[in-house]
Amino acid sequence: MDYDQLLRLALERGFFAPSCELYGDSPAGFWEYGPIGLALRNRFVELWRREILRRDDMVEIDGSQIMSKSVFEASGHLQSFSDPVITCSKCRSIYRADRLIQESTGQTVPERLKNSEFDRAITDNKIKCPSCGGHLGKTEGFNMMFKIGIGPSQTEAYLRPETCQSIFVDFPRLFKTLRRKLPVAFAQYGKSFRNEIAPRQGFMRLREFYQAEIEVFFNVDKVNSIENFDQVSNQVVRILRTGTLPEEISLKKAVASGIIPNKLFGYYLGLLHQFYDKTGLDMSKTRFRELSSRDRAFYADFSIDFEVETSLGWIELVACNYRTDYDLRRHSEVSKRDLSVMDDETRVLPHIFELSMGVDRSIYSIMEHAFEHDGERNVMRFRAELAPVQVGIFPLVTKEGLPERAEDLHAKLKMIFDAVYDKSGSIGRRYRRLDEIGSPACVTVDHRTLKDDTVTIRDRDSMKQTRVKSSRVEEILTDIMRGRKFPSLSQVE
Amino acid sequence: MDYDQLLRLALERGFFAPSCELYGDSPAGFWEYGPIGLALRNRFVELWRREILRRDDMVEIDGSQIMSKSVFEASGHLQSFSDPVITCSKCRSIYRADRLIQESTGQTVPERLKNSEFDRAITDNKIKCPSCGGHLGKTEGFNMMFKIGIGPSQTEAYLRPETCQSIFVDFPRLFKTLRRKLPVAFAQYGKSFRNEIAPRQGFMRLREFYQAEIEVFFNVDKVNSIENFDQVSNQVVRILRTGTLPEEISLKKAVASGIIPNKLFGYYLGLLHQFYDKTGLDMSKTRFRELSSRDRAFYADFSIDFEVETSLGWIELVACNYRTDYDLRRHSEVSKRDLSVMDDETRVLPHIFELSMGVDRSIYSIMEHAFEHDGERNVMRFRAELAPVQVGIFPLVTKEGLPERAEDLHAKLKMIFDAVYDKSGSIGRRYRRLDEIGSPACVTVDHRTLKDDTVTIRDRDSMKQTRVKSSRVEEILTDIMRGRKFPSLSQVE
Repeated sequence: MDYDQLLRLALERGFFAPSCELYGDSPAGFWEYGPIGLALRNRFVELWRREILRRDDMVEIDGSQIMSKSVFEASGHLQSFSDPVITCSKCRSIYRADRLIQESTGQTVPERLKNSEFDRAITDNKIKCPSCGGHLGKTEGFNMMFKIGIGPSQTEAYLRPETCQSIFVDFPRLFKTLRRKLPVAFAQYGKSFRNEIAPRQGFMRLREFYQAEIEVFFNVDKVNSIENFDQVSNQVVRILRTGTLPEEISLKKAVASGIIPNKLFGYYLGLLHQFYDKTGLDMSKTRFRELSSRDRAFYADFSIDFEVETSLGWIELVACNYRTDYDLRRHSEVSKRDLSVMDDETRVLPHIFELSMGVDRSIYSIMEHAFEHDGERNVMRFRAELAPVQVGIFPLVTKEGLPERAEDLHAKLKMIFDAVYDKSGSIGRRYRRLDEIGSPACVTVDHRTLKDDTVTIRDRDSMKQTRVKSSRVEEILTDIMRGRKFPSLSQVE
Repeated sequence: MDYDQLLRLALERGFFAPSCELYGDSPAGFWEYGPIGLALRNRFVELWRREILRRDDMVEIDGSQIMSKSVFEASGHLQSFSDPVITCSKCRSIYRADRLIQESTGQTVPERLKNSEFDRAITDNKIKCPSCGGHLGKTEGFNMMFKIGIGPSQTEAYLRPETCQSIFVDFPRLFKTLRRKLPVAFAQYGKSFRNEIAPRQGFMRLREFYQAEIEVFFNVDKVNSIENFDQVSNQVVRILRTGTLPEEISLKKAVASGIIPNKLFGYYLGLLHQFYDKTGLDMSKTRFRELSSRDRAFYADFSIDFEVETSLGWIELVACNYRTDYDLRRHSEVSKRDLSVMDDETRVLPHIFELSMGVDRSIYSIMEHAFEHDGERNVMRFRAELAPVQVGIFPLVTKEGLPERAEDLHAKLKMIFDAVYDKSGSIGRRYRRLDEIGSPACVTVDHRTLKDDTVTIRDRDSMKQTRVKSSRVEEILTDIMRGRKFPSLSQVE
């Protein structure tokens, strides 16, 4: 399945769609979640909360998206969070420098060159404006934050380019309220905004997107005193470092050999890996890729991306960054507040390790890996726990009182499960529609229901139907949603 | 309890706090949810989903917050969504006209006067600039939408001032995907943004805030053929109309007497009322208040607000508006797309009735109504279902192996409930802290636990402790969270 096929299914079945598509002037990079996509995303976030946040006793907050200018002066985003652009001196078309050079020369160009290096590449390769052939101006930095004016005086502020800044500036109050010792992890799920120059990959490169970020505050002198590391140390992961081939290695060995700098980082990378395993991603198509110092963000001292292979190539899902004490130090300098805390007897300025997850991309990747076309049908093989619709309830035909019986069953089940009722079209087509959104089970009311109060439950994956007493439906569905195997006939009848 | 007291508790216990408070330049109207406030809000939204959305088979979506200019040309917000401001010609101070006149004259001034009416009031009352005594300029409209520039060309777009616009522009695709008949309701929970001139009421008047909106699309010729109305018709509500005293009346009578225009509106107002009843609000301090034509929003033909009484006075929690076919007609005109749909044999342009809920204000009101100071302690009497922390797990003392036993119990319970572990301070203080965040139960591990594997469960409201086998804790807590009464000693031992 490629991006276009998936997009078609997403549009038809209510996963996601471009924002404001009614209007021709809608800018790229803004998308909406339809009912099915939203339900899938909510379940994904719940799983993240349970498998990472609860497991590690993390603390979740929800900060404002508009933040004041000082925050981004301190964070460095005002100065450094920019993409290189080149403007045609004749027709005023604007291009992203690296992409223009790449497309003109066919060579791969790093994102993070100096402006002068881009200029030299333009001159050396005699590149002109692709639209009008005009002379191209000098490379300039285009800041990717969206600026906002607050109140009638239009006080300068910005839409946050990453959710974590709220965690950093709220740290003093949060830490005090929490009454816990380092290390402590704060998490946030919400929207961030980046004014990309010309986003082209549809749902995979958004200007407004969901992040789920975790910021671990720790004492840099104690990075190897993490008892919990033992919980994940035998986990085998795939790691790719610059200039080497990917290797499969346990986290214990990766830490011992220095590939992962310490146990603390290893522990959180392990949690992350085990979480994604539960989302149903094909883990043989995932890897951690270490970034070279040239590719790292300006605040990071060590960066390793969790990536997944899709039809669009290898995609970054989670940026894992060791941000050092950069953030608290900078916010401390600019705000003139001491942000250090006591760790036992010592006063320390905490360092930060972050797991910065792209939620929308994760959803896309899970969909692509779950999709299968098996001969005659499209089926999303979502894990039952992530299924946006858990059960469909159908009357076999729309007469003889079957719809009423099915509606009664739906009215009961919908307060417990994400259930849809559907009576239109052939039963086969109704099954197909729910296969396409990955509903693990369908319950059908037929003529026998009127006689002996039994219904059939159909399993999405095997397409096998099992007849059961309708009083047992709730219990069987509960089992299925917990990931138990679909019951065999002998078990349930 | 007044606003200042509640705010103090909110800050101390992690409910909410001003955004970017580290910095002096942080503009008013932006707040963050701490861990406790976020958990409370998430539970509130889950209750909304279950008691309104699931009950009525509504469809939830999640749209982009940045929307293109055309959307707001069509919606009327570019032209009409403004507040009246007056600028001092000498010191350039800017004032909201209605508020300036109100504060200078001590008289109540309607929000929606014409600019010339404000100007006349300024002249008639000889009002000068309160800062410098200078001459005040003419009243002007200040548009309350935040403008955004997209991409290097800075294409004009806006942060949505209400979530519902995504539902309107997505309607054609949503309705087609859904394959259902009118009436059909779409819902959205998310952020909206309004550039208030000088917000003063802290958490109660935000520039960035959460809405939970429901938009019901219906055939205007069938507003009285809603069978579901019978589900709520006996519900008694308090209604206040202009120039009358509030009256308590059943929805059936309110519709029959024309106070509520039709059964469709009555049904959704009933759902709303029954939902709030389950949040634990004191319903004797709520009312529906009909707005006069002067007070209604520019798109509304009938408006009734669901209000709650707090220490700040009567506060609007939900604006219920009959938007007629205004939205689809305008979007149809501007986009040049036919947005009508088939309803049985007839082609109709659906009309819209909306329930537009302020989530943050609802959270605040629930907190205020739940708060009690009973002699020696502060206690939040949240309904168990809304409690942000469901259970605290404490070792009685921090020695003799009690902490280890309590940690084991916490590790097990935290995967099922929102549970916190606390071992610091006296047991009395630990109970008090959880009383303040409204945790319905606390489980304490003591010396007897080591002998006979029993623990005590403490009830927040009665402060009564009951000793039970620790193997029964999960089942008892499950009962409590479902709203069952705290078990008596005889039942559990």
